[in-house]
Amino acid sequence: MDETAWIRRYIAPLVTAVGADELRDDVALLTALGPTIATMDTLVEGVHFLPADPISTVGQKLVRVNVSDIHAKAAEPVEALLSIAWPRGRSEQAFSELLSGIAKDLDEFSVSLIGGDLVQHSGPLTLTLAITGRCIGKSPIRRSGGRIGDVLYVNGEIGWGQLGLQAARVGGDEQIAERYRIPRISPSFSARTVADVASASMDVSDGLLIDALRLAEASKCGARIDLDRVPLAAPSEELATILAQCTGGDDYRILISARPNLEIPGFWAIGELTESHGLSIRHRGQQVNPPSTLGFEH
Amino acid sequence: MDETAWIRRYIAPLVTAVGADELRDDVALLTALGPTIATMDTLVEGVHFLPADPISTVGQKLVRVNVSDIHAKAAEPVEALLSIAWPRGRSEQAFSELLSGIAKDLDEFSVSLIGGDLVQHSGPLTLTLAITGRCIGKSPIRRSGGRIGDVLYVNGEIGWGQLGLQAARVGGDEQIAERYRIPRISPSFSARTVADVASASMDVSDGLLIDALRLAEASKCGARIDLDRVPLAAPSEELATILAQCTGGDDYRILISARPNLEIPGFWAIGELTESHGLSIRHRGQQVNPPSTLGFEH
Repeated sequence: MDETAWIRRYIAPLVTAVGADELRDDVALLTALGPTIATMDTLVEGVHFLPADPISTVGQKLVRVNVSDIHAKAAEPVEALLSIAWPRGRSEQAFSELLSGIAKDLDEFSVSLIGGDLVQHSGPLTLTLAITGRCIGKSPIRRSGGRIGDVLYVNGEIGWGQLGLQAARVGGDEQIAERYRIPRISPSFSARTVADVASASMDVSDGLLIDALRLAEASKCGARIDLDRVPLAAPSEELATILAQCTGGDDYRILISARPNLEIPGFWAIGELTESHGLSIRHRGQQVNPPSTLGFEH
Repeated sequence: MDETAWIRRYIAPLVTAVGADELRDDVALLTALGPTIATMDTLVEGVHFLPADPISTVGQKLVRVNVSDIHAKAAEPVEALLSIAWPRGRSEQAFSELLSGIAKDLDEFSVSLIGGDLVQHSGPLTLTLAITGRCIGKSPIRRSGGRIGDVLYVNGEIGWGQLGLQAARVGGDEQIAERYRIPRISPSFSARTVADVASASMDVSDGLLIDALRLAEASKCGARIDLDRVPLAAPSEELATILAQCTGGDDYRILISARPNLEIPGFWAIGELTESHGLSIRHRGQQVNPPSTLGFEH
């Protein structure tokens, strides 16, 4: 790997923001107009994606998991810094495909790549992306703004991450596996909705149940989830099948709390914030015990 | 490694910026007052530091290589996002020491940690830091602003990186090895000097000769370095010894171009930007051939 040549060939063409100075410098000038937020996520081969995943989808996932965080805070993604720790000896073709996936979704979500770093190492492919976002309102919508009695709403089906991972692992249905590899993150109009109505907000990345509990805890209350109202990727009568989808993670939906009885386009009411702390779950009108694992803990 | 517990125990205490919301959220609110720049550097064990280096010094180096980029652009560092890919099974004690080194130098250079990511993997320790900087002037000083006839100035001794790496590798003088592990980066008053006088600027990270050529090329001219005027870590009569120090890298000094005949406190005049492209080197008044390797190419 000739790092300079690979940067020129595959990365520099993605860099069009004036502030990035065509990657000819060590820093980039950020475009900051109004309140700006930042997030950083790292994906490691074998941990956050499978070695057999088509590498362009890994690039797409890297962008999406970060954009998801930005949208959930009621902001639009703006600029990105990319670090790639590339396994020594892996082919230039693979690198080119990784970058094509990254480029595709930077474009899809209107993010400008402005800089980063490229190194070789002896470990698994490790990708870090930092993204800035411009708040639609005066500040990001936090996890911590929920109030007792607020209703919990989610903006899409839950469970595709879990079903897709299963399919990808066993060589199952490719279309379902693709839902794990390339999460269908909420479009940016969801960010505007969050800005308009949410008291608290976060993206569901580790599992609906654990993330609902986190939002509730940050808001100093508890959460009740009505499983019958959760829009599931694979609707089921089986409690175990339902819980698997609600604890599987990798959904990248937006979970918000807001006033009750709102009709929020694209969002489903699935529970509420409660005075009693912790998580309670209802199924067919009955209270059921939470599973021992609520999601991906890290 | 219990990621949540380690974040709470070692990372959250470093986070005091209001915009970081005590790491209870997925994003941080940036403090942007005026033109803001950003940079990102990744350090990999076995590539950018030695497995035997005391791990707290690795944390310090991570901060310093990024701060160096910010200072060289005539800016003050402000906020940082940190990603750690931690080798599975390595001790909590080592993690604690790494963070103590990071904390020490974030404090030293007045940088606020505002977020990031922590993952485990099967590879070498891989650290990525993104830092923002507030420009002292209206924009960063680029590599590309140099003019023919401008003099090249450097703000400290060249060669400690090379001497220190040698010492660290063979178990030599600990004080010299420390100069490789914890680069003495220029204090922030250098950033003000850069803002005041520099036409072009960059930090010397890959070797004085290669970085001087890069600055010249970005400025669309050539560079001449007078080896007799370069302040060396180990002054020598031997051309080979001098060239080793000027091509060794890891110095983290600031190299600027500016008008001739300036007395710039803390800076030494070491050459100039020339009309003829490429790099020329003078030693004892004679032109000498550039070595085949000008520095660390990547």
